Amino acid sequence: MALPFFYTEKLSQTGGRLALDGATSRHISQVLRMKKGDSIILTDGKGKRCRAVLQEQTKKECVVDIDREVLDIPPLKPRLTIAISLLKNASRFEWFLEKAAETGINAIVPLICERTERVHFRMERMQHILVSAMLQSQQCWLPEIAMPTPFNEWVVQTGVPHRYIAHCIQGEKMKLSRAAGSPGETAICIGPEGDFSVTETEWALQHRFVPVSLGDTRLRTETAGVAAAVLLRIG
Amino acid sequence: MALPFFYTEKLSQTGGRLALDGATSRHISQVLRMKKGDSIILTDGKGKRCRAVLQEQTKKECVVDIDREVLDIPPLKPRLTIAISLLKNASRFEWFLEKAAETGINAIVPLICERTERVHFRMERMQHILVSAMLQSQQCWLPEIAMPTPFNEWVVQTGVPHRYIAHCIQGEKMKLSRAAGSPGETAICIGPEGDFSVTETEWALQHRFVPVSLGDTRLRTETAGVAAAVLLRIG
Repeated sequence: MALPFFYTEKLSQTGGRLALDGATSRHISQVLRMKKGDSIILTDGKGKRCRAVLQEQTKKECVVDIDREVLDIPPLKPRLTIAISLLKNASRFEWFLEKAAETGINAIVPLICERTERVHFRMERMQHILVSAMLQSQQCWLPEIAMPTPFNEWVVQTGVPHRYIAHCIQGEKMKLSRAAGSPGETAICIGPEGDFSVTETEWALQHRFVPVSLGDTRLRTETAGVAAAVLLRIG
Repeated sequence: MALPFFYTEKLSQTGGRLALDGATSRHISQVLRMKKGDSIILTDGKGKRCRAVLQEQTKKECVVDIDREVLDIPPLKPRLTIAISLLKNASRFEWFLEKAAETGINAIVPLICERTERVHFRMERMQHILVSAMLQSQQCWLPEIAMPTPFNEWVVQTGVPHRYIAHCIQGEKMKLSRAAGSPGETAICIGPEGDFSVTETEWALQHRFVPVSLGDTRLRTETAGVAAAVLLRIG
């Protein structure tokens, strides 16, 4: 059975002692009931992965000895960014985050589009979901997540070679599956349940976004996001 | 704005009166506050779709006049079946059902595998989720869902030309994206969180299932199910 796998921000040196955060420490002590000498695996979410051995346990924290050998795992390529409208139903947006992390998306940008239904965005919670999903899927790269960004601004800021917009307005669209496997950074934007407006779509086209189709059925926003992740990363 | 879209089992004739079920009637009267003469769209989940005009409303039910012109929409092809292990976390399984319906999967078979964590299966609830997802995505074909089936039996019963098994055991596997677009009925099976056992995998291979890969990251069961649906239907 695989060793327990945890996340720590502070994995910057090889060897030496490291105090784990409160939640991780509690899980190790109270749930897994691990003892001095037991091993775990750690990642810093930036590609580093190493073994660590439990040394001390107090009620508040665990201290581990980090192995001298620290693996440096490269991020998945090509670099994929999914920009996706926030959703009023927070759990749907969180499902998308989890699935985007599982499939190995490098970056997520929550978008505020014309028809986005505003909702309170809790960065700490979003990070927690991404960390859990990263660990669950045994990965060592934590997807980056931006603060909610107005769509028009994001379109202008994005400088990647391959840019796609998935919208439901009639018109010529390429199947996204054709884009899969192209080398080079890729970004795709997904609109709210009410779709992008005509103005937003034209703004994206002016900035060289290519309209793409995600199939013949009408997908919810979070489903479209997962479909895009699957087609670009796995397809 | 699109007319309200509802499901009714009993759409067997063109024209004539039809009493809608309780839940639909309540939604029409109390939520949408529709009146005599207002129009809705109906589907029977078997490809039929037509307009209907509200005639009578009582506290308990609504009666509509069905349009003479009933569309007969063919099911999506090729016919796709996803057989997938039941999950202890029911909401994850239900999330998969919803996404499978949205993407246009024709049939779902809940599997009982060696490592499936047993859970109470409520067919009525599963049907309700599939109906909602079908209506939300504007489709007219309700995915079929079988009762939970032991994996070994399902493998023997399945007679489709293209059969795939997605497992995590080391070995040669084809990328599922390569299978997308092949004409002819297709079925894929997805195992529980603990994966299929070696015995189960060998049983499938003996029955001409082809091992496939769903990418390089470790996916949860429901994520693998949605990935398979996306790759086969949209890819």
